[in-house]
Amino acid sequence: MNGALPAIALIGGTGDLGTGLARRWTAAGYPIILGSRSAAKAAEAAALLSGAVRARGLDNAAAAQAGEIVVVTVPFGSHTEILDQIRDAVAGKLVVDTTVPLMPPRVARVQLPPEDSAAVAAQKRLGDRARVVAAFHNVAALKLQKDMAIDCDVLVFGDDVKDRETVIALAQAAGLRGLHGGPLANSTATEALTSVLIGINRTYKVDGAGIRITGIAQG
Amino acid sequence: MNGALPAIALIGGTGDLGTGLARRWTAAGYPIILGSRSAAKAAEAAALLSGAVRARGLDNAAAAQAGEIVVVTVPFGSHTEILDQIRDAVAGKLVVDTTVPLMPPRVARVQLPPEDSAAVAAQKRLGDRARVVAAFHNVAALKLQKDMAIDCDVLVFGDDVKDRETVIALAQAAGLRGLHGGPLANSTATEALTSVLIGINRTYKVDGAGIRITGIAQG
Repeated sequence: MNGALPAIALIGGTGDLGTGLARRWTAAGYPIILGSRSAAKAAEAAALLSGAVRARGLDNAAAAQAGEIVVVTVPFGSHTEILDQIRDAVAGKLVVDTTVPLMPPRVARVQLPPEDSAAVAAQKRLGDRARVVAAFHNVAALKLQKDMAIDCDVLVFGDDVKDRETVIALAQAAGLRGLHGGPLANSTATEALTSVLIGINRTYKVDGAGIRITGIAQG
Repeated sequence: MNGALPAIALIGGTGDLGTGLARRWTAAGYPIILGSRSAAKAAEAAALLSGAVRARGLDNAAAAQAGEIVVVTVPFGSHTEILDQIRDAVAGKLVVDTTVPLMPPRVARVQLPPEDSAAVAAQKRLGDRARVVAAFHNVAALKLQKDMAIDCDVLVFGDDVKDRETVIALAQAAGLRGLHGGPLANSTATEALTSVLIGINRTYKVDGAGIRITGIAQG
């Protein structure tokens, strides 16, 4: 453990978004634990990360236990199941949910869950034992995996201002501008926007459309 | 009537967004009809607009009848009532709905209608008699009223590509970049984003936060 920077567990951390964030946070000096269904697969992916602190790979529940901050990067289809696997391990912790309610095959169409937001569904599923913040919905995972500047803001949603500030700092550590987006329920906006961006990628034949908030000073 | 440019009726056209769009479209040469509950009030507001074609002011139903394209700029609280007033007049027409489901006093909190989108609710209310396209949710009305460049994109949602293209051209005529956002149901994303932007205006003490889509060529 690093004395200054909290250990971050990435649940579903061998996927595109998980490995992208892991690359950037290890480079910024954060201790990283990758979680996966398979501890062996997580260990393999962790071995590919280079940072001041060696990354580890564990199964999802053990990773959630080992992390001080737990970041969920799983497909919507596995969301509930994986939340149930980590619910005991995240007691008292900050959980950053990046989940977008994409429902294949129509991923370019906004389709909201009954709670109107995957993050609100997560908070409901985890109950009071964890504090959920939603972020990183709109950033292209493949861009995070490269050493390139990313022209995209990260809107951060949560019911506690300090928790949002923690996640804004994580966005900055990943090379992105993080912004307060308001209460957790507002996560609907950027969760829905992801489907719009997928459609824009198709319509305009690009591969990483993102968003910027205008009208405030650039950070 | 102008032979080249369609006449645009702005329903609720004496409000901030309606007069802002009217100013820009009259300047671009579009024939404009302002609609209001009070025809007298609409005529007064129309007299303040200067353009190649003199703007007119009528009551909402008469304005909807006179317009070839009907743009709805009314508060969410009046949405259903006003749609019912214009439903016969908009038969066969393109209806551009700008409505954001803001529910005072908590306007910085995303609160979706049962249909998940005000525009989808409008299409349902009007039935097959009109083609609804949703747009202009995120642009600051007060900026439209001034002769200034606006750093904001307009995402345009509708189930018909040609209708979306018509509205993208209207955005360009107002000095904004319009972009295809996909089917009408995707309007949820920018309707919800408006509450987020209102919160950002408060948090960052600015008065016209907007959005830009990044990663595609600037238009």
